[in-house]
Amino acid sequence: MFVVKIGGNILDSPERLQAFLVDFAQLPGPKLLVHGGGKIASAFGQRLGITPRMVEGRRITDAETLELVTMVYGGLVNKQVVAKLQALGCNAIGLTGADANIIPAHLRPVRTIDYGFAGDVEGPETINVQALEAFFQVGLTPVVAPLTHDTQGSMLNTNADTIASVLATALAQNHSVQLIYCFEKKGVLQNAEDEDSVIPHINAEKYQALKEDGVVNAGMVPKLDNAFAALQQGVQAVQICDAAAIKQLVEGNNAGTLITFS
Amino acid sequence: MFVVKIGGNILDSPERLQAFLVDFAQLPGPKLLVHGGGKIASAFGQRLGITPRMVEGRRITDAETLELVTMVYGGLVNKQVVAKLQALGCNAIGLTGADANIIPAHLRPVRTIDYGFAGDVEGPETINVQALEAFFQVGLTPVVAPLTHDTQGSMLNTNADTIASVLATALAQNHSVQLIYCFEKKGVLQNAEDEDSVIPHINAEKYQALKEDGVVNAGMVPKLDNAFAALQQGVQAVQICDAAAIKQLVEGNNAGTLITFS
Repeated sequence: MFVVKIGGNILDSPERLQAFLVDFAQLPGPKLLVHGGGKIASAFGQRLGITPRMVEGRRITDAETLELVTMVYGGLVNKQVVAKLQALGCNAIGLTGADANIIPAHLRPVRTIDYGFAGDVEGPETINVQALEAFFQVGLTPVVAPLTHDTQGSMLNTNADTIASVLATALAQNHSVQLIYCFEKKGVLQNAEDEDSVIPHINAEKYQALKEDGVVNAGMVPKLDNAFAALQQGVQAVQICDAAAIKQLVEGNNAGTLITFS
Repeated sequence: MFVVKIGGNILDSPERLQAFLVDFAQLPGPKLLVHGGGKIASAFGQRLGITPRMVEGRRITDAETLELVTMVYGGLVNKQVVAKLQALGCNAIGLTGADANIIPAHLRPVRTIDYGFAGDVEGPETINVQALEAFFQVGLTPVVAPLTHDTQGSMLNTNADTIASVLATALAQNHSVQLIYCFEKKGVLQNAEDEDSVIPHINAEKYQALKEDGVVNAGMVPKLDNAFAALQQGVQAVQICDAAAIKQLVEGNNAGTLITFS
């Protein structure tokens, strides 16, 4: 089973999105797509007079911003992706964490920063795997927006990488899951200046060395920590690559950076 | 099985919406909710600088308006209703016609008016009843936004009354379906000036008489024509009432105007 996460750089370009979806639709077996949409939300927010407030790369979700992301992630981006996948013969179903209660969450507690309506997911054990399995059984491909709910009636804003990781981990109970993070680069780079210096394979031991040598930069550390956390909880392999790499995976080749535990 | 449609007058007020959802959640057996959201879309459209263009009570859906309604109907309104139902113990799943391909449609052909991205549904035979049945079987309550898709990759805007009617008709193949239209009045009125002059029961014969006497006004004719069309295609009964009437139906009482064929 493939759990694939795509971010803003793919969603921002209709051509890149279409090319990616053509490849994604061809991935064999059950699969699930998680999407972001932050840049599109920021653009609509600007038109609506809502200024995005970010702290450490995370959006502060006030009441207005919650409406904005619920519209853009759960409506615009999610349904455009679903409609495009349907046209490619992939029977997609768009979901947020509230739908079928697949991802219950809780409001992030205020410590030094008040993130507003940001949702933290307890862990893979709270995911409603039964509902997801029912969808897979009737041939549906879930397309998940980065939104959860507090089970008290409010939607919550949750990081798409986190959603991909927690869903992959929850599904790993019953499936051999490959978690794929598509981002703007071809993979984890040996040399940040050289787009082609992709490190083909990283295991736990190599990750330590890369961190000690300073090869892995600050931006990659959370992504890789996330990847190893998923592996420790049963995900078979994590792939960090660009969207074009999906075509390679469909053809059975490796692409980008493969991350495994040992 | 209950198929309930709610419109703008309920969605516009958080208090009325909450009161309605409490009652709706208590309706026994499988049920499905269809919602509108035109007024909320118009308000956001105004903030975004999109002026609504209406012809004969129907929105002209240009490309910008399609984005707007996809966001507002499929995202904001749909997910807010789903989250609120989840909090009431009703395992809701938000859907558009593109999700699981439940309502394929086609672009309305241009005759005298170009409605833009407006979707016409062929008929109940094109509804993906199998997917809906799979959702009912695992205890889910579909919450359907008034959006369809053209199966070629584009979302389409479709009237919520039409969606309620076509879904009720399609589900009537396997279920005894009661179709309930909630609107701003208590039912079909004998005297438009008297809110309490609700006609408790209308059958085909009485409808003819009411039309000939001019009791049923122009606004009600499409609603009632729609109701009789649904009855002719197997729906057991149609109820036209206000949202407060759902509580009466939960308690097994009649409320509003009951419409049956004979």
